[in-house]
Amino acid sequence: MAKSDVKKVVLAYSGGLDTSIILKWLQTTYGCEVVTFTADLGQGEELEPARQKALLLGIKPENIFIEDLREEFVRDYVFPMFRANAVYEGQYLLGTSIARPLIGKKQIEIAEKVGADAVCHGATGKGNDQVRFELAYYALKPDVKVIAPWREWDLTSRTKLIEFAEKHQIPIAKDKRGDAPFSTDANLLHTSSEGKVLEDPSQDVPDYVFSRTVSPETAPDKATVITVDFERGDATAVDGVKLSPAALLAKLNDLGRINGIGRLDLVENRYVGMKSRGMYETPGGTILLAAHRGIESITLDRGAAHLKDELMPKYAELVYNGFWFAPEREMLQAAIDKSQEFVTGRVRLKLYKGNVTVIGRESPYSLYDQELVTFEEGAVAYDQHDAQGFIKLNALRLRTLGQRRKKTGI
Amino acid sequence: MAKSDVKKVVLAYSGGLDTSIILKWLQTTYGCEVVTFTADLGQGEELEPARQKALLLGIKPENIFIEDLREEFVRDYVFPMFRANAVYEGQYLLGTSIARPLIGKKQIEIAEKVGADAVCHGATGKGNDQVRFELAYYALKPDVKVIAPWREWDLTSRTKLIEFAEKHQIPIAKDKRGDAPFSTDANLLHTSSEGKVLEDPSQDVPDYVFSRTVSPETAPDKATVITVDFERGDATAVDGVKLSPAALLAKLNDLGRINGIGRLDLVENRYVGMKSRGMYETPGGTILLAAHRGIESITLDRGAAHLKDELMPKYAELVYNGFWFAPEREMLQAAIDKSQEFVTGRVRLKLYKGNVTVIGRESPYSLYDQELVTFEEGAVAYDQHDAQGFIKLNALRLRTLGQRRKKTGI
Amino acid sequence: MAKSDVKKVVLAYSGGLDTSIILKWLQTTYGCEVVTFTADLGQGEELEPARQKALLLGIKPENIFIEDLREEFVRDYVFPMFRANAVYEGQYLLGTSIARPLIGKKQIEIAEKVGADAVCHGATGKGNDQVRFELAYYALKPDVKVIAPWREWDLTSRTKLIEFAEKHQIPIAKDKRGDAPFSTDANLLHTSSEGKVLEDPSQDVPDYVFSRTVSPETAPDKATVITVDFERGDATAVDGVKLSPAALLAKLNDLGRINGIGRLDLVENRYVGMKSRGMYETPGGTILLAAHRGIESITLDRGAAHLKDELMPKYAELVYNGFWFAPEREMLQAAIDKSQEFVTGRVRLKLYKGNVTVIGRESPYSLYDQELVTFEEGAVAYDQHDAQGFIKLNALRLRTLGQRRKKTGI
Amino acid sequence: MAKSDVKKVVLAYSGGLDTSIILKWLQTTYGCEVVTFTADLGQGEELEPARQKALLLGIKPENIFIEDLREEFVRDYVFPMFRANAVYEGQYLLGTSIARPLIGKKQIEIAEKVGADAVCHGATGKGNDQVRFELAYYALKPDVKVIAPWREWDLTSRTKLIEFAEKHQIPIAKDKRGDAPFSTDANLLHTSSEGKVLEDPSQDVPDYVFSRTVSPETAPDKATVITVDFERGDATAVDGVKLSPAALLAKLNDLGRINGIGRLDLVENRYVGMKSRGMYETPGGTILLAAHRGIESITLDRGAAHLKDELMPKYAELVYNGFWFAPEREMLQAAIDKSQEFVTGRVRLKLYKGNVTVIGRESPYSLYDQELVTFEEGAVAYDQHDAQGFIKLNALRLRTLGQRRKKTGI
Repeated sequence: MAKSDVKKVVLAYSGGLDTSIILKWLQTTYGCEVVTFTADLGQGEELEPARQKALLLGIKPENIFIEDLREEFVRDYVFPMFRANAVYEGQYLLGTSIARPLIGKKQIEIAEKVGADAVCHGATGKGNDQVRFELAYYALKPDVKVIAPWREWDLTSRTKLIEFAEKHQIPIAKDKRGDAPFSTDANLLHTSSEGKVLEDPSQDVPDYVFSRTVSPETAPDKATVITVDFERGDATAVDGVKLSPAALLAKLNDLGRINGIGRLDLVENRYVGMKSRGMYETPGGTILLAAHRGIESITLDRGAAHLKDELMPKYAELVYNGFWFAPEREMLQAAIDKSQEFVTGRVRLKLYKGNVTVIGRESPYSLYDQELVTFEEGAVAYDQHDAQGFIKLNALRLRTLGQRRKKTGI
Repeated sequence: MAKSDVKKVVLAYSGGLDTSIILKWLQTTYGCEVVTFTADLGQGEELEPARQKALLLGIKPENIFIEDLREEFVRDYVFPMFRANAVYEGQYLLGTSIARPLIGKKQIEIAEKVGADAVCHGATGKGNDQVRFELAYYALKPDVKVIAPWREWDLTSRTKLIEFAEKHQIPIAKDKRGDAPFSTDANLLHTSSEGKVLEDPSQDVPDYVFSRTVSPETAPDKATVITVDFERGDATAVDGVKLSPAALLAKLNDLGRINGIGRLDLVENRYVGMKSRGMYETPGGTILLAAHRGIESITLDRGAAHLKDELMPKYAELVYNGFWFAPEREMLQAAIDKSQEFVTGRVRLKLYKGNVTVIGRESPYSLYDQELVTFEEGAVAYDQHDAQGFIKLNALRLRTLGQRRKKTGI
Repeated sequence: MAKSDVKKVVLAYSGGLDTSIILKWLQTTYGCEVVTFTADLGQGEELEPARQKALLLGIKPENIFIEDLREEFVRDYVFPMFRANAVYEGQYLLGTSIARPLIGKKQIEIAEKVGADAVCHGATGKGNDQVRFELAYYALKPDVKVIAPWREWDLTSRTKLIEFAEKHQIPIAKDKRGDAPFSTDANLLHTSSEGKVLEDPSQDVPDYVFSRTVSPETAPDKATVITVDFERGDATAVDGVKLSPAALLAKLNDLGRINGIGRLDLVENRYVGMKSRGMYETPGGTILLAAHRGIESITLDRGAAHLKDELMPKYAELVYNGFWFAPEREMLQAAIDKSQEFVTGRVRLKLYKGNVTVIGRESPYSLYDQELVTFEEGAVAYDQHDAQGFIKLNALRLRTLGQRRKKTGI
Repeated sequence: MAKSDVKKVVLAYSGGLDTSIILKWLQTTYGCEVVTFTADLGQGEELEPARQKALLLGIKPENIFIEDLREEFVRDYVFPMFRANAVYEGQYLLGTSIARPLIGKKQIEIAEKVGADAVCHGATGKGNDQVRFELAYYALKPDVKVIAPWREWDLTSRTKLIEFAEKHQIPIAKDKRGDAPFSTDANLLHTSSEGKVLEDPSQDVPDYVFSRTVSPETAPDKATVITVDFERGDATAVDGVKLSPAALLAKLNDLGRINGIGRLDLVENRYVGMKSRGMYETPGGTILLAAHRGIESITLDRGAAHLKDELMPKYAELVYNGFWFAPEREMLQAAIDKSQEFVTGRVRLKLYKGNVTVIGRESPYSLYDQELVTFEEGAVAYDQHDAQGFIKLNALRLRTLGQRRKKTGI
C-alpha cells in the first residue's frame, strides 16, 4: 500500500531486537505514529524492559500498551481447544497457533481504542504465523491495513538488519549480532523451535535447543503421581488444589518439565504450502491432553466421543491455519462444548521420564458400569442373547453381499 | 437353531480348557461332527498340544487343522491397518480386533473344504469378539450356521464349567479351577487383558497383569536407537536388516518389550454398547506407528495426510466393530493404499523407558525441501510476496462477515 | 419378558384396526391396564373416533390421551432438521423418521404421569420405525418395558388378525378385511407408502398410491410464484403472511400439492439391514428445503456452508436410524444451530408442475456483495493481483509433488 | 515476471475476440513465440475458424494445435466425477470446474512437446477458473511460467480492449463491441452464465440468458420415458443403444434440452472468497445424476453408499477448487471407484417439463431382495426376533445416559 496511507499502527512488540527494528522501520518508512502492544502470554519474560525500550525508541507513554493475558489465554483459547483434544497431524498440540488469534484480537481492540488504521506483526513471510495474525485482524476489523515488514522490506539478511539497528541507535545484545542457530516462540502452553540447526530432518535435535523440559534421561528415577480434576471439560485442580486456568497450566508445566514430558520433534505441513521441521516442548499440555482423554473415557458417551474424534482433525487444521475467528471453527466448538457438560471428575496420572500414564479415573457422572461388564450373569440392562440379534441384523447387508458374490461368481 | 440342524462344525480351538469344554459341549449338545482349527497368530503358545488334546477328545485326525498364520496376519491385516495409522478412541492399536477377521476367514475356508455347515467360536456374549468373528463368518459364507456357546449354554459359572469338564474327562490344569483374576488375548501384535482385577477404572493395573513388556521403571537406563525402513507404507527392515512382515514385527516386539514400550490402560466403548476397561501391551506396534508417521511426515503430501487423518477414526471404528470384510472398509483401504506409493525411506527412533521418539527421517522421495523453508531469501518456488495474496483471499470471506457484523451491529 | 411383569402399558393408538387389535391383544395376553395415546401430527384424520373406539374396547376415560402435537412437531422436530438441510441417501426428506421420536417422547411422558411401566407401538419387526420408537423410549426412560406385538405374537397373517378381531368384537371396516395393496404413514410433513404393489423396484408406482399430491401432468399449466420468509433458519411467513410453524407447513403443503411437487420413488437402505422401496410425498417439505438452501446461499459463509454439507449425511443418518435423542445428534444440532443466526430474509420461488425453483433471494444480512464480483475494476476488498499469490501458495505442494515425480521418474 | 523471460507460450485459444487480443498482447508484450491450443469439449463451436484466425494473427501453422477432446473429457473427467454423485453446495454439477484440468493438461503436454516454457489462459482475476487452470499447470509442470493477462495488463475496460484490437487489426464481430450482458462458458456437460444481468440475486434470470434448454413451460406436454444402462458406474447406453461416452452425454443433452431439464439459478461461494450468482444449464448431466443414483440404489451396499455420501462434499469441493490433480482427489477417487464394481444395470426414467424421475431400476447384481422386505413371514435371512437384540444393544448406551440423567437429576 502507499506508504503515506498509514496514520497510526499498532505493533505487536516483544521488546526484542527484531520488533525494535520493525518499530523504527515503521517510523522511518511509513512516517506514522507507532503504538506498541506487549502481551504476557506466559513466555517467561519481563514486560517492563519492553516499556523502557519503547520509550527509548520514541514511543509516547500513552501509546505503550502492556497486558497480562495469561488467564484469558488459557481460559478462552487453550481450554476450549483442549476440550476438542486437538492435535495437528497426529502429534502437534498447537501451542503457537492458539496464541496468535488472541494477540491479533488485542491489537485490533487497541486499534479501535486509539483510532489506529493499521496493525503490524513481526512474523516472517514463510511461516504460518503471518496467516494467523492477519486472518484475526481481518476478521475483527475488515478495513484494517496490515503491515508485514518481513514481506516488505529489503532487510533481507542479518547483516542488513544489524546495520539498520546501528544506524538507528537500537541497542543490540551481544548474542544477537550473528544469526541465531534456531528461532523460538514461547507462551504458557509451549515453546517451539525451528530453523537452521533443525533444518535437516534426518538429524537429531541438538540438546541445547530444549529449554522448557529436562530430558527423559535426566528426569527423576521415581515417578510422580498426580491428580487432575475437571469440571465440564476444563481442568480445575491439581492434586486437589483448585487453581485458576493459568496457574493450573503453569503447575502442570512444572510437573511436566521436571519429568521430561512433552518434547516433540516433528516434520509438519505448513498452511503456506511447504514442510517444515519443528521441535516443540509442551510439558503441561501433554499432561492435560492425557488427563482430558482420561476423564472423557468414563464420562463421554460413545456416540459423542466418536463424533469428536471424527471432527477433531478438521478443528485442529482450522486452528493451525489461523481460522480461530471463522464460523466453522465456532460451529465445531459449539458441538464440542455441547459434549462436555458431564466431563467432570478426577484423573490420576503417573509422570515418569517422559511418560504420562492415566492410572485411574473417577466421576460422579461416570458411564462406566461394572455391572454391565462383569462376566458373570446377573446384570439387568445387558442380556447376552440380545447380541445374536444385534449381530445378525448388522450382518444382514454383508450376507446379502456374500450371496451376490456367490450368485454372480465374482 | 434346532440342535439337529447342525451336521459339521468348525471350531476355533485354542487347546485350552474353555474351548475344550466347548468342543465336548458341541459333541454332546448338537451331536455333530467337530472340526478343530488352531492358528498360530504369534500368541506364543505351542500348537502341538492342541492337536494332542483334540485327538484325546475324540476328534478325527483329518478333522484337525493347524496353521501358522503369522506372516499372513502381519502382511494382510496388521500392515494394511498401520498404513491407516489406525487408533481407536485416540489410543487403542486394535490388536485383538484385527486378528478376528483372519481367524474367521480361515474357519470359513475350512468349512468350505470339509463341507461343514456351521462354525463356532469361544467369545463371550458381552464382548466385541463375538461380533468380529460372526461378521466375518456371515460376510464370507452367508448361509453358515453360527454357534456361540457362551450365549447359548447354561454353564454360567466357573463351578458349572469345571463340573462339565470333569464329567467329560477333560483335563483341567490346576490353575484353571478357580476364576482367573483377568482374561487375556494375545497375538503377534499385542496382548490384551481385561476383567475382574481390572474392572475398577479408578484403580491402577496390578503389576502381575503385564506379561509382554517390562515396566518403564525397570527398562534399561540407556536408550536404544534403531532404524526402520519402509517401502510403500510397509516396514521392511530393522537396523538395515530386511525381515519378513512377521519377523519384523517380532523384532520390534523384542525391542519394545525390553524398553518398556506400548503399555496402555484404557476405558473404551464396546460396539455392543457398554464401556469396559482394558489393558493392552503393543510393544512393536507402538514403535511401528511412530515410525510410520515419521516416514509419512516427509513423504506424504499435506492433502493426502490430512485426508488420511480425517478418515482414520472411521476406519479404526470399522476395524474395532468387526467390519473388516465390509465394502466401506475396503473403500477406505483403497484410498489409504493409494496414498502410500511413495511412503518409502528410513526412520531413526530412540527407544527409552516407555518412550518412542522419532529422531530422524530420510527418503529418496522426500517432499521436505530445505530450500523452501530457509529463512534467507533465494529459494525459487516460494516468493514471500505471494503470502499476501494468499492471506487476503483467504481472509475475504472473514472480512465480509466482519463488515456484516459492523453494518448490522450484531 | 414374562407376561405377568407388565402392569400398565401406554400404547401408541391410532384408532385403526391394527392398533385396536394390539390394544385387545395387550389386555388378553398381558392382562395389564392399557393406556392409549393418540396424537395429531397432521396425518389428516379425526381424533375423536379414536377416543370412541378406545372406550368401546374397554379403556377407562382417564386412560385415554389425545393430543394435538402439530405445532410442537414442526417447531421442535421438523424445523431443526430442515436447518440441517437433512436428506437421507441423497433424496429422502425423513418425513416418517422425524415423527417417531416425538410420539415416543409423549408416550414416555404419559407413562411417567400415569405410572405405567411399559410402552407399546404398532410398528412391524422388519422396519425402521420399531427402532426409532424404542430408541426414544429407552433414551428417555431407561427402565421402561417395551412391547412390540408384531415381533411377539402369532398373528402372522391377515387371516389370523381378522379372526382375532372378530373373536374380540373389534369393528372391522370392509376394506380392511383383505391385505392392503400397500401401507402408508402420514403426518404434516409427508405421506409414505410401501409394500406389496411397490415391491418390484423395476415397476413404476401405480397412480392410485399417491394421495397427497396431484401429478405434475395434471398440475396447473401456469406457475405459482411465492415468497417464503426466514428468521434464524426457520420459515416464518409465506407470501408475506406470518404463520405458526404448523400453519406454515400446511400452507406449503397446499401449494406443493396442487403443483405436483414432492413425489419421490426411492429404493433405500433400512437400518435393520435390507433395502426397501418406498414412495414419498413431501410437498411442503420439498419447497421448504429449496427455500432454506436459497436463503442460506446469500446469508451463510462458505466455511459454515461447507461444514454443514459435510456433516449433513451423518445427521440425516442419525435421524433416519432413530438416534434423535442421542448426544451426537444434539452435538451436530448445536453446530448447525450456531450457523443459523443470520439465516434471515426472503426467498422467491416458482412452483410449476413438480418443479421448485428459487428465482430470487434477499436479506438484510446478505453476504453477497455485487461490488466484489463485478468484472470491472474498482472494488476495494478484492485485488485481482492477490489471486496470483493465492494460487501460487495453494500450488506449492502440488509443484513439490510434480518435482518429485520428475526427479524420480515415477 | 520479467517480460523477457518467456520464450514460447502455449495459449488456450478459443478463436474469439478476447483470446485473440491475448494472443496479440502476448506477442507485443512478451515478444515471445505463441502456440495456440484450441480444444473441442463440446462447446458447440466450429474449430476451423480458430485455426484461420490464428494464422491471420501470425501464428505459424506448426504452432496451431486443435484437438477434439470430447471423448476424453467425458470418459476420464465427467464420468469419474459422476461416479461420486458430485454436487457442489448441494446443487451445482460442476460443469465448468471439470473441464479446466483437461485443458490445462493438454496445454502442458503441448508445452512439453514444442519446448514452450510458459502457458497462458484467458480467465479473469476474480473467478475460479484461473485457479483451476493454474493448479493443473503447476501440478503437471512445476517449473512452468504462467501468464494470466487479465491479472497483468492494463486493458481494464471494454473500451481499452476494443482499442487494442483495432490497433492490432484483430477482427471484431459487431456484437462484441459493447459489454456483453452476461458471459458464458460451455462444454458438453453444461453451459454457465454469469455477470451483469445476473448480478442481482433477488432478480429472476432473464429468458434470453438460457441457451441450452427450453423452459419447462414450453417443453412437451407429454413425458418422455427413457432407459439408461450402466456398467461399473458409467453410463453405456440410452434406450438400449450402446453409445460412446461423448455420444451418450450428447444424447442425454438432447433429451434434457427438449424436456426443459437441468436449469439451475444459484448463488455460490467461489474459492477466491466471494459469492457469485450463476445460471447453469446441465440437461444431460441432470439426467445422468438421477440415473446413477437410481442404479446405485439397488446395487450399492449401505455402508458403501453412506461412505460415498459422506465423502462427496469434500470431493466436490476439490473439483470446484481446481484440485483435480491433487493426491487427495485421487485418494477419494480410488475409494469411489472401488465401490462401483457392481454398479451395473438399467434405469428407467421419466422426463417431463423439467422433472427427471426414476421410475424403475433393475440389475443382475441387485441387492434388493423382495423376500427380505415382504411383510409376511417366511424369508430366511431376516428373523424379526433379531430386531429386539439389535435395538436393545443399540439402545444400551442411551439407557446408560438416561440412568445418569435420572441419578444426577440433571
